Amino acid sequence: MKGHSSHQVERRLLCELLRLFYEKGWVSGTGGGICAVVVKSEVLMAPTGVHKERVTSQDLFVVNSRSGKVILPPRNKSLRLSECSSIFCALINQRGAGSVMHSHALSAVLAADLAGTSDHVVFEGLEMLKGLRGASNLDKHPLPVIHNTTREPDLLKQINYVLGQADFSRAYAILVRDHGAYIWGEDIWEAKRHAEVYHFLFEATVTRKQRQPKG
Amino acid sequence: MKGHSSHQVERRLLCELLRLFYEKGWVSGTGGGICAVVVKSEVLMAPTGVHKERVTSQDLFVVNSRSGKVILPPRNKSLRLSECSSIFCALINQRGAGSVMHSHALSAVLAADLAGTSDHVVFEGLEMLKGLRGASNLDKHPLPVIHNTTREPDLLKQINYVLGQADFSRAYAILVRDHGAYIWGEDIWEAKRHAEVYHFLFEATVTRKQRQPKG
Amino acid sequence: MKGHSSHQVERRLLCELLRLFYEKGWVSGTGGGICAVVVKSEVLMAPTGVHKERVTSQDLFVVNSRSGKVILPPRNKSLRLSECSSIFCALINQRGAGSVMHSHALSAVLAADLAGTSDHVVFEGLEMLKGLRGASNLDKHPLPVIHNTTREPDLLKQINYVLGQADFSRAYAILVRDHGAYIWGEDIWEAKRHAEVYHFLFEATVTRKQRQPKG
Amino acid sequence: MKGHSSHQVERRLLCELLRLFYEKGWVSGTGGGICAVVVKSEVLMAPTGVHKERVTSQDLFVVNSRSGKVILPPRNKSLRLSECSSIFCALINQRGAGSVMHSHALSAVLAADLAGTSDHVVFEGLEMLKGLRGASNLDKHPLPVIHNTTREPDLLKQINYVLGQADFSRAYAILVRDHGAYIWGEDIWEAKRHAEVYHFLFEATVTRKQRQPKG
Repeated sequence: MKGHSSHQVERRLLCELLRLFYEKGWVSGTGGGICAVVVKSEVLMAPTGVHKERVTSQDLFVVNSRSGKVILPPRNKSLRLSECSSIFCALINQRGAGSVMHSHALSAVLAADLAGTSDHVVFEGLEMLKGLRGASNLDKHPLPVIHNTTREPDLLKQINYVLGQADFSRAYAILVRDHGAYIWGEDIWEAKRHAEVYHFLFEATVTRKQRQPKG
Repeated sequence: MKGHSSHQVERRLLCELLRLFYEKGWVSGTGGGICAVVVKSEVLMAPTGVHKERVTSQDLFVVNSRSGKVILPPRNKSLRLSECSSIFCALINQRGAGSVMHSHALSAVLAADLAGTSDHVVFEGLEMLKGLRGASNLDKHPLPVIHNTTREPDLLKQINYVLGQADFSRAYAILVRDHGAYIWGEDIWEAKRHAEVYHFLFEATVTRKQRQPKG
Repeated sequence: MKGHSSHQVERRLLCELLRLFYEKGWVSGTGGGICAVVVKSEVLMAPTGVHKERVTSQDLFVVNSRSGKVILPPRNKSLRLSECSSIFCALINQRGAGSVMHSHALSAVLAADLAGTSDHVVFEGLEMLKGLRGASNLDKHPLPVIHNTTREPDLLKQINYVLGQADFSRAYAILVRDHGAYIWGEDIWEAKRHAEVYHFLFEATVTRKQRQPKG
Repeated sequence: MKGHSSHQVERRLLCELLRLFYEKGWVSGTGGGICAVVVKSEVLMAPTGVHKERVTSQDLFVVNSRSGKVILPPRNKSLRLSECSSIFCALINQRGAGSVMHSHALSAVLAADLAGTSDHVVFEGLEMLKGLRGASNLDKHPLPVIHNTTREPDLLKQINYVLGQADFSRAYAILVRDHGAYIWGEDIWEAKRHAEVYHFLFEATVTRKQRQPKG
């Protein structure tokens, strides 16, 4: 990676996906984010605290996923690296994620509510499960549900814990109570597909439970 | 049909409808699909496993609806034919469908849920029924509801069964539990109209039943 | 009015509004429609049975609102005049409507459901009422709710009846059970404003009643 | 500020945001509005009674926020200043708002309904709270809920009252029963962010309460 003009295709695609996610209501109010590995250990990351649908390809940080350090900041020095950075790096390093998106969707919050006092929610009985790598429509697909924290990096301890649990070895998402979800894939396209699949699973499962309050 | 440049109008229209259906939430997460007969027994079909809103006219397969065989694959050899192919062909051959769309809409899943232990759902009491060829707003319009299977071609046996039942002779759609719907028409425009009408019927009927839980 | 090239501004605006109403889900499945008076007793009307978001300015009929007869059909001879024509003319002649839109929105169907065995629904307690000409937020605003019929012109008898009732003298809309609504204004812009206001009233009132089932 | 051509960036941005808010359903039926301070005590304000998504940069008024008087009206003399003008000025003068938006969103009406007989609604348990300046996800964030009035300037007395209450010193929004909300920020971008955050809080809280009717 040489500089701000490198990886223009990936830079533009990440910005396009942020606009798409904004239209879907997943990254409103400057919330949410996205990243993608472009070269081994080098990750493009969206800045924090900005209207995500207006991020341009020049606004992305390049971060080393091993050290967590910024290799190349955007030219606009007022931009700050996402607080999700350490979480994004953990998912890249421990799960081989090639791209991670962070959703603030209401459906993710309501899906996490379904956990009640449990540490997970099981998604099942939906063809859309097949949209997850390696999954079948017959799977009972558990996602970990962690507690929200005041600062985003403080989620990392819980995330490291759930990533080590065998029950969640086939999960490509982590739900955060009252907050949203982290969703990943092996590359940008799989992260997009997984994001669409999981948000469908969230909405479908929340809607079905609403109709069967004892379900 | 001579090659990749033939039937550009239909090719572009199918891709436009995939983008429209994506915006409506009917083909998210790479799910769903569409096909259209362009010449007797020759069918344009969208590929599987790709983000449907990004399919271009060069990405379509040409399939013989009688043999089910690919006559002309897209130039991009990484594309695979939809698993719906055999279902699309059955609807073309047995119902004279000129175009079929496959929906992964949540409203279709919820409408199939209404069947409970029955093998069908009846739609009634809605003017929108008139948007179905030959139907009246006074009709009680039953749609077959079949069980989902792990592989899409395995739905074919059930589909062949319901297509043979007199009760469903006026249906232009089949609901698949936990999955979605196949919806067809005599040409692309009627398939689009039927898709819009059926999704309205799904949403209206699900919403009305929600409000009258014993209804 | 001289011919197909006359009143291009109004023609284009009606088509633009059909596209807008389609995006809002008010005229899906080829349902719904729109008209506007352009010269005394001369009315532009959208055709029936076509995908409303694809109507172009050349596709409109010119109808005499007094006689109900077509003055100038579109050049495309396959287009048919809307079955709403006689209803549109009644609202123009009896209410001085300058523009009428016909909605197939689900919210209109659900609002009509609220009537139960009554012949009207009252909308109240909403600032949005002020968006109706001459109305106050303190008004109890009753809309007539008529029964659906198999053919649209057969609604006319009921429409003539409710237009003669003093209770509905300040209504700019008629709800049709299981069907939708006719909404009008003194010109295209007021019809658009009234359409947006009434659909808000429908959705708000349906949602509030859902939350208070005994309400 | 010299004239109609001044502050084109802000003028265009306000019109762009009105279009965005219209798409979100926050300013339908000509309702709602927006303003922004461009020079000390000089405020750009959208006109009233017009379709908000169609306002152009030439259509804005320049108002002195101290005197409330129009400094520069738009060239189109048929346009009228928003009835919100005195409320916008109060929020600018008493809270240092640099931009205020007025929402007619259904979610705001339903959020105000949650107040019941109380004078406020508390938003809590949502990460999205962090999108409000100075707020934490652990905050219990109360918003004042005032009664609607027949004329918008008559809201001013209640608004002045709640702006003086310590309980609401960290609020950037006021809910108006049956009506909507006023939402502000220190500049246009913060007003946009706060608008998105508050509408998320409204929708999330209304949805959660629906699912727990005793909650």
